[in-house]
Amino acid sequence: MDVKLLAQEAKAAAYVLPSLTSEIKNQALKAMAQALRARCGEILKANEEDLLLAKKELEAGNLKPTLYSRLHLTQEKLDGVIRGIEEMVALPDPVGKVLSAVELDEGLTLYKISCPLGLLGVIFEARPDVVPQIAALAVKSGNAAVLKGGKESANTNRVMMQVLKDALATVHGYPPQALQLIYTREESAQMLLLDDLFDLIIPRGGNSLIAYVKAHTKIPVLGHADGVCHIYIAPSADIKMAQKICVDAKTQYPAACNTVETLLIDKRWPVEHQKNLLQTLVQAGVELYGDEQVSALAPVTGPVADWHTEYGDKKLSVRFVSDLLAAVTHINQYGSHHTDAILTQSSEEAEVFMELVDSAGVYHNASTRFADGYRYGFGAEVGISTGKTHARGPVGLEGLTIYKYKLYGSGQAVGEYIGPNAKPFTHKVIGSKS
Amino acid sequence: MDVKLLAQEAKAAAYVLPSLTSEIKNQALKAMAQALRARCGEILKANEEDLLLAKKELEAGNLKPTLYSRLHLTQEKLDGVIRGIEEMVALPDPVGKVLSAVELDEGLTLYKISCPLGLLGVIFEARPDVVPQIAALAVKSGNAAVLKGGKESANTNRVMMQVLKDALATVHGYPPQALQLIYTREESAQMLLLDDLFDLIIPRGGNSLIAYVKAHTKIPVLGHADGVCHIYIAPSADIKMAQKICVDAKTQYPAACNTVETLLIDKRWPVEHQKNLLQTLVQAGVELYGDEQVSALAPVTGPVADWHTEYGDKKLSVRFVSDLLAAVTHINQYGSHHTDAILTQSSEEAEVFMELVDSAGVYHNASTRFADGYRYGFGAEVGISTGKTHARGPVGLEGLTIYKYKLYGSGQAVGEYIGPNAKPFTHKVIGSKS
Repeated sequence: MDVKLLAQEAKAAAYVLPSLTSEIKNQALKAMAQALRARCGEILKANEEDLLLAKKELEAGNLKPTLYSRLHLTQEKLDGVIRGIEEMVALPDPVGKVLSAVELDEGLTLYKISCPLGLLGVIFEARPDVVPQIAALAVKSGNAAVLKGGKESANTNRVMMQVLKDALATVHGYPPQALQLIYTREESAQMLLLDDLFDLIIPRGGNSLIAYVKAHTKIPVLGHADGVCHIYIAPSADIKMAQKICVDAKTQYPAACNTVETLLIDKRWPVEHQKNLLQTLVQAGVELYGDEQVSALAPVTGPVADWHTEYGDKKLSVRFVSDLLAAVTHINQYGSHHTDAILTQSSEEAEVFMELVDSAGVYHNASTRFADGYRYGFGAEVGISTGKTHARGPVGLEGLTIYKYKLYGSGQAVGEYIGPNAKPFTHKVIGSKS
Repeated sequence: MDVKLLAQEAKAAAYVLPSLTSEIKNQALKAMAQALRARCGEILKANEEDLLLAKKELEAGNLKPTLYSRLHLTQEKLDGVIRGIEEMVALPDPVGKVLSAVELDEGLTLYKISCPLGLLGVIFEARPDVVPQIAALAVKSGNAAVLKGGKESANTNRVMMQVLKDALATVHGYPPQALQLIYTREESAQMLLLDDLFDLIIPRGGNSLIAYVKAHTKIPVLGHADGVCHIYIAPSADIKMAQKICVDAKTQYPAACNTVETLLIDKRWPVEHQKNLLQTLVQAGVELYGDEQVSALAPVTGPVADWHTEYGDKKLSVRFVSDLLAAVTHINQYGSHHTDAILTQSSEEAEVFMELVDSAGVYHNASTRFADGYRYGFGAEVGISTGKTHARGPVGLEGLTIYKYKLYGSGQAVGEYIGPNAKPFTHKVIGSKS
């Protein structure tokens, strides 16, 4: 497959997409949902082929059981994806929003208008349900996208992409070549070199994938490296709330990136609360790591080897800190700028924590597990960014847009505004396009 | 100089800056302006030393005359910089703005709040007036910054940075180590490796500097590669307006990146207008490049060697195109996504052009030279971005910020919102923080 040719086709489509109306994009989403529903038999059959091949790899020990289960596309999962696409129709169009409007002078008006990024490259692992999700996000946000799925789901991905492109082809004015699929690591490596065609690369997967992508491309990369989230228990924290939130944040889905990995307990919190909380966690099946201060209160598996550790499991590092600033310093030093929470009855204390912790999400009295595009009300997300430029935290439709400046003049030259007889600029902020 | 140590100090300051009030930041700006005014003698004396050294280099042929003149810091230039800092006090604080507020559920509210990026690395060439400009932008936007100036202005830069840091030290609560200066290419190379400390690198300078920076760092880079700007003359363009705007866009300051480099003339525009416009440009001292269609109407220096050319001089590529779409295709293929204009009496035509041209600035009936932070009303700019992520076009205070999500809960766990008895999210958009 000629990746460059395919990316050029997608880029050509990307130049057309910004001018499509919300109506056409929503028609495209509806056609996609309809086609996925109508042809789900075809899709599930392709998935069975993938599962059959994967089962052999599983039995040969070449595939992890978790990967196998994520590969399995059930009717229920597919229904969920289709519902997600249908719900996206109702979301506001992220493109064409007037972000600001300023009159520079009479008859010279500057608008900052949201617009698509252009061509996205999305690299993900063996979850075939990602294909229609990303496709829908791309369509709604007016972006073209080249998708690289896991090789284990190649059949499912191929059939789903065909279904989606067939659906797009029925929508008058929508260029179906806006969506493309590539299959192999070699093709993915070729894509990373095309910095003149791609505007953003989004790797969805483990640390090693993201590190690989960052090391091999000049294209901007949106992704998250780690999810080392913290909860700081302040002196006034409520014990019941602490028990509930810490158990949720650690055990509700331990493999998720928004799971808490380190618990920072203020030394001034009553010792009976400290003991209660730690023992509650142990009873919830959590293995604790910490020093003798921790082991004096609850059974501990061992000391913390590295405060940067993302266990992704029912394991938790525990540390006692002397005050809020010590907690903040620990979090900014060892955290991954993902999501960190403070539990306290003092809103002043919470505000200081939330200002000083340099993370995409800073929470007061809530579980770190809320860091998620769906829970934030974004409809869907392409991932969670721990970077600090462009988009931060869960990235939904808005994160797939940027803006352009549209200047409407009536013959103005810059020379008129320079020199001894310069006309002044008015720089009058106005509400909306006249 | 230990660049890592110095960057660590600046980063430590960067963790404090987000919590400073607008008042403290404005006090810092006022102190900076005051100190620059009070100590301008010291600064201009240091500049004389730099000029003396540079003059020798100039005479030895090791320094370009343009670089020498940019190195010269006059009282007038310094006054302008000081006024710029004073004006920045009045600009709204870009930090702490509520970008969105959503109630996820009763007692669980999500705020998207603008915040500083953190630590910036700014690399620029021999214009010493950039030091206080960047320092002021960093202070107002709550960022720490490490500045690398040109080696020719080392004395001026050192004295100015000392003046600025002395000023910051007088402001209670402001950490003066937020601003740092480095001097050599080796130090700059060390800085580019510190991707765990720096949040953004801003190279201000020629193409070779930007290409070097991009090739040598994993830190996100904000900069512009080229300024290949276009003007498309549509069939209904007014001849007088075309003459005025094209002469302004090409000759008002030919070295600027927002100068027009290629003129695309619609074949259907009356031939007498075509001839008039080209001859007006020639009379204004512009050398034209183009094919025999062009040379049939006006004297031409030669054919266009490369449509990607940024002359930075009173030279202009000229091409006849068959229609608007041909112009758009040319611009998207050969342009640098900087600023492109259409001259037309048809607002429908203008709108199509402005949708389809993939540039940071798309103009109707105005000179491309308006692409500038001051003219846009941003007060000052760190540069013009031709990238498509994070910030686009002239980048002012807002481009030096990102956002964080603040979630205010009352003990919520994610488990309550999952499963058969899941509580629903309300996702109710609210106006402001309650």
